[in-house]
Amino acid sequence: MRIAQVAPLYESVPPKGYGGTERVVSYLTEELVAMGHEVTLFASGDSVSAATLVPGVDQALRLNPVSDNPMVPHLLMLEDVFSREGQFDLVHSHVDALCYPFARRSGIPVLSTLHGRLDLESLDSLYQEYREQWVVSISDSQREALPDARWIGTVHHGLPRDLYRFHPEPGRYLAFIGRVSPEKRLDRAIEIATRCHLPLRIAAKVDPVDLEYFHEVIEPMLHHPLVAWIGELSDQSKDDFLGNALALLFPIDWPEPFGLTMIESLACGTPVVAWQHGSVSEIIEPGVTGCLCEDVGAAVRAVHRIRQLSRAACRESFERRFTARRMAEDYLALYRRVVTGGQSLPELKEAVL
Amino acid sequence: MRIAQVAPLYESVPPKGYGGTERVVSYLTEELVAMGHEVTLFASGDSVSAATLVPGVDQALRLNPVSDNPMVPHLLMLEDVFSREGQFDLVHSHVDALCYPFARRSGIPVLSTLHGRLDLESLDSLYQEYREQWVVSISDSQREALPDARWIGTVHHGLPRDLYRFHPEPGRYLAFIGRVSPEKRLDRAIEIATRCHLPLRIAAKVDPVDLEYFHEVIEPMLHHPLVAWIGELSDQSKDDFLGNALALLFPIDWPEPFGLTMIESLACGTPVVAWQHGSVSEIIEPGVTGCLCEDVGAAVRAVHRIRQLSRAACRESFERRFTARRMAEDYLALYRRVVTGGQSLPELKEAVL
Repeated sequence: MRIAQVAPLYESVPPKGYGGTERVVSYLTEELVAMGHEVTLFASGDSVSAATLVPGVDQALRLNPVSDNPMVPHLLMLEDVFSREGQFDLVHSHVDALCYPFARRSGIPVLSTLHGRLDLESLDSLYQEYREQWVVSISDSQREALPDARWIGTVHHGLPRDLYRFHPEPGRYLAFIGRVSPEKRLDRAIEIATRCHLPLRIAAKVDPVDLEYFHEVIEPMLHHPLVAWIGELSDQSKDDFLGNALALLFPIDWPEPFGLTMIESLACGTPVVAWQHGSVSEIIEPGVTGCLCEDVGAAVRAVHRIRQLSRAACRESFERRFTARRMAEDYLALYRRVVTGGQSLPELKEAVL
Repeated sequence: MRIAQVAPLYESVPPKGYGGTERVVSYLTEELVAMGHEVTLFASGDSVSAATLVPGVDQALRLNPVSDNPMVPHLLMLEDVFSREGQFDLVHSHVDALCYPFARRSGIPVLSTLHGRLDLESLDSLYQEYREQWVVSISDSQREALPDARWIGTVHHGLPRDLYRFHPEPGRYLAFIGRVSPEKRLDRAIEIATRCHLPLRIAAKVDPVDLEYFHEVIEPMLHHPLVAWIGELSDQSKDDFLGNALALLFPIDWPEPFGLTMIESLACGTPVVAWQHGSVSEIIEPGVTGCLCEDVGAAVRAVHRIRQLSRAACRESFERRFTARRMAEDYLALYRRVVTGGQSLPELKEAVL
């Protein structure tokens, strides 16, 4: 197929640091190219891809402090995309709302993956208005807040099969990765680790908006001798960091739309001890690849029993359910439905799972 | 004519406090209605107008802290506007870039007034792309940064003729109105007043982004016995504040696109001592309604001579050049050109001045 992938311009594809959406766009794009599809990637000019790259800006907007209004380059990119009617069989957008006025007025079939949380006030009216737009959720739970959008399927994220190595031996510490924001509950992770008398290694970043929370709540807890602050990690060091852990702690307190870290951990063979919010129960198979907990006591007991889980089973679950190839195949099935107008197929998420 | 006015949703029309764009949209809308035109105002639901109000949101976004993504209600408002093809002869947009993808794909004639400064990096490429869009500047100087946009005219702002009363007697203090941001140069105003041994009254607000500048630069200067801090003003108290002043100080250091305060001052009969930046030389007639200065020494000399200017001439200049009626008539001339496709008329700003 001739596919346009339209990425946000905030980060390069793939991103140099943080940036979940642009990372997934990269994995998907490269896999589609590897499968022989003709992919055009609309993204920031510092992106790296085997697809045909059409730069929307020279440099990712987050790294380019002179960009005064991020909406403008996105508008211009979308004008470019939709001026190319006939060049693509389908446009796959990852930029949400701004694409819909263009899509509505274009003859090119468009599919949008929604990467963020959807329980926001403005979105109900947005999807009431644009109810003809085909949208894809990244977990079933993500779409609960917006049942009436035109869902065509859920496609769980995937990683390149060989991005992370399988680490067969369980390590001696617990791992935490992510932003230090209240809903990630690093405080819970620290409590679990100290009650288990196990070291906790924290690979985290603190966004400016979270500095106050960090200084007030988290920083005082970092002095515990079992707690080690590692900072932000590259993909390479993430492999060792996750692979050498006994378990990943994912004690979140919010409706996580997907949670890429969980499948990165499984790819390394490391099981996950998580709170059952958002997508978690779709990703973790309890008793096989991790445990779903409701309080710290349950999480402590889960860590005590975690060696009973097979690390090979974690890796096997990743290879079966969370590779970029599986993701690309799921999307291709949806692309074909959108290109043919979605006819003859029920609009049920089960149909594509 | 059947005219749609499309206002930003950040403030009500007119705004309850600050908000230059929404204020001008209100003056224009009410004047067009008074002249017998059929005006539909797309604006926040707490707006007050004699036009037909179509609310884009219930409450102005700045006052409604639950609004999570301000772009979404603007998108929905624009879908509503452009779904009404046939109901309007013309759409007059005050929301800039977001309107252009809709305008390009619609059969309704559209005119956009650009209310902000235009010397921003992203705007060159924006107006390269949307070069078919008719745009109006609020001063000739404003458009210098974007000579290649499709300018159809400059329309200076106007105020309802009776909004401010003429105050024939010169007062005994100097006045400063505006935000306390570095480019407004309140520090200069204080220096001028103290060197003139005249009281300075400051009707100003401090935005959060300017707090550091306020504490570091301005606050230490406020202890001078001649300096009085008044705070933010309502329209009514502005009348007395400006009208009872000897002169308005407008010692700006940036390309002010228009500067509503200057014409408010003239409406009261109060001349203006200003720095020659941006629109200033188009608004102030030197030796008639004020003085254009290049340094503090010249401003001090100008204040010493300011009683030589006729306050009646200031009011007369306002009535001749800066009423809402004159503004509405200017816009109507442009509306007619856009509705007829702009043909037979040169795209020169002189043509409409």
